[in-house]
Amino acid sequence: MSVAVISLHGMMSVAVVGRRYARCMARWKPDGRGRLEQAALELFGERGFEKVTVAEIAARAGLTERTFFRHYADKREVLFGGGPMLQELLVNAVTDAPDGTAPIDTVAGALDAVAALLGARRDFALKRHAVIAANAELRERELIKLALIAASLAEALRARGVKEPAASLTAEAGIAVFRVAFERWVAPKNRQTLARLIRSSLDELKAVTAGA
Amino acid sequence: MSVAVISLHGMMSVAVVGRRYARCMARWKPDGRGRLEQAALELFGERGFEKVTVAEIAARAGLTERTFFRHYADKREVLFGGGPMLQELLVNAVTDAPDGTAPIDTVAGALDAVAALLGARRDFALKRHAVIAANAELRERELIKLALIAASLAEALRARGVKEPAASLTAEAGIAVFRVAFERWVAPKNRQTLARLIRSSLDELKAVTAGA
Repeated sequence: MSVAVISLHGMMSVAVVGRRYARCMARWKPDGRGRLEQAALELFGERGFEKVTVAEIAARAGLTERTFFRHYADKREVLFGGGPMLQELLVNAVTDAPDGTAPIDTVAGALDAVAALLGARRDFALKRHAVIAANAELRERELIKLALIAASLAEALRARGVKEPAASLTAEAGIAVFRVAFERWVAPKNRQTLARLIRSSLDELKAVTAGA
Repeated sequence: MSVAVISLHGMMSVAVVGRRYARCMARWKPDGRGRLEQAALELFGERGFEKVTVAEIAARAGLTERTFFRHYADKREVLFGGGPMLQELLVNAVTDAPDGTAPIDTVAGALDAVAALLGARRDFALKRHAVIAANAELRERELIKLALIAASLAEALRARGVKEPAASLTAEAGIAVFRVAFERWVAPKNRQTLARLIRSSLDELKAVTAGA
């Protein structure tokens, strides 16, 4: 299917998830939560994830530990609390794609929706990425998060009638495209949008699998 | 590049790694090590990985704990000790591929070499897979192992002059194909060889990324 169709579908997905996204942002960032998130990222960046305590995060945010634990189960959740929302966004975009859309195009549309969401939080994404890149355990956690998302994407494709192994391969390909595009997006000198990088990475995957 | 070329390249890779493989097997399975491996897999299968101690593995193998620790750093290494060899095999196959081979075909050839190695150890692979599938921490460890292998494959491709993001996407695609083919290979009713499943999964990936 052509790039034009992918883009159109992407735009529809973004429209579909618009209200959901607004709700998520509201749920995600009420004032206390936003201040805690910012304080945590600052401290993780300054001193490394492991050395920072919840008490210090709360103090930096001018809030109590008790308030921290109303928003997050632990300090790791400041970094990974968005995972389930990302997964829901992707799965819904695949599920809601028009009938007859090729599997890879449903995934491309879902990734467009993710790009719209993460693109609006570039500063958070950059800081979060730096913290995760500096810590082996967090890098592992991120891998596992992406593997779980790939599994749920494959399930959403199977629910649309895509057979195995096509469903798993399409989902894995989509996550590979996302991971590679994300790495390029957070690279120091990058000036391209995440949406554009996702689309060019998908085109590149098509070229390499075709034997180019 | 055609399937015939991929197969030919695969056969060459297998030939190239033949001696290396024989050496690895010798290093891998001297008698004591082989007995410890078998005892460990039996016990993990019977009672779950977590509940088994090194003392019990050694006793089942008719050896001492001291002998166990001459072969393995801990009981997890019985399951993951082959990872570095797998990585070396893949990286060498990519590195040794003839000049001008398309990146995806170098990876396909490398996977053929892995299929030859794992195919010869199907019983071990099946038992190992069952143990890992039953334990969340081991599943995570396996994911991390595959991610490290993908990263080293991407590096081997870059060393051949493949640019980014093509190198990372080709490596990720190869690992996705391997993971999906492996899952099909260890499925209860499967009768196909790992080599055949890897090749059909790669064909399927080509079809899905082309928008089929």
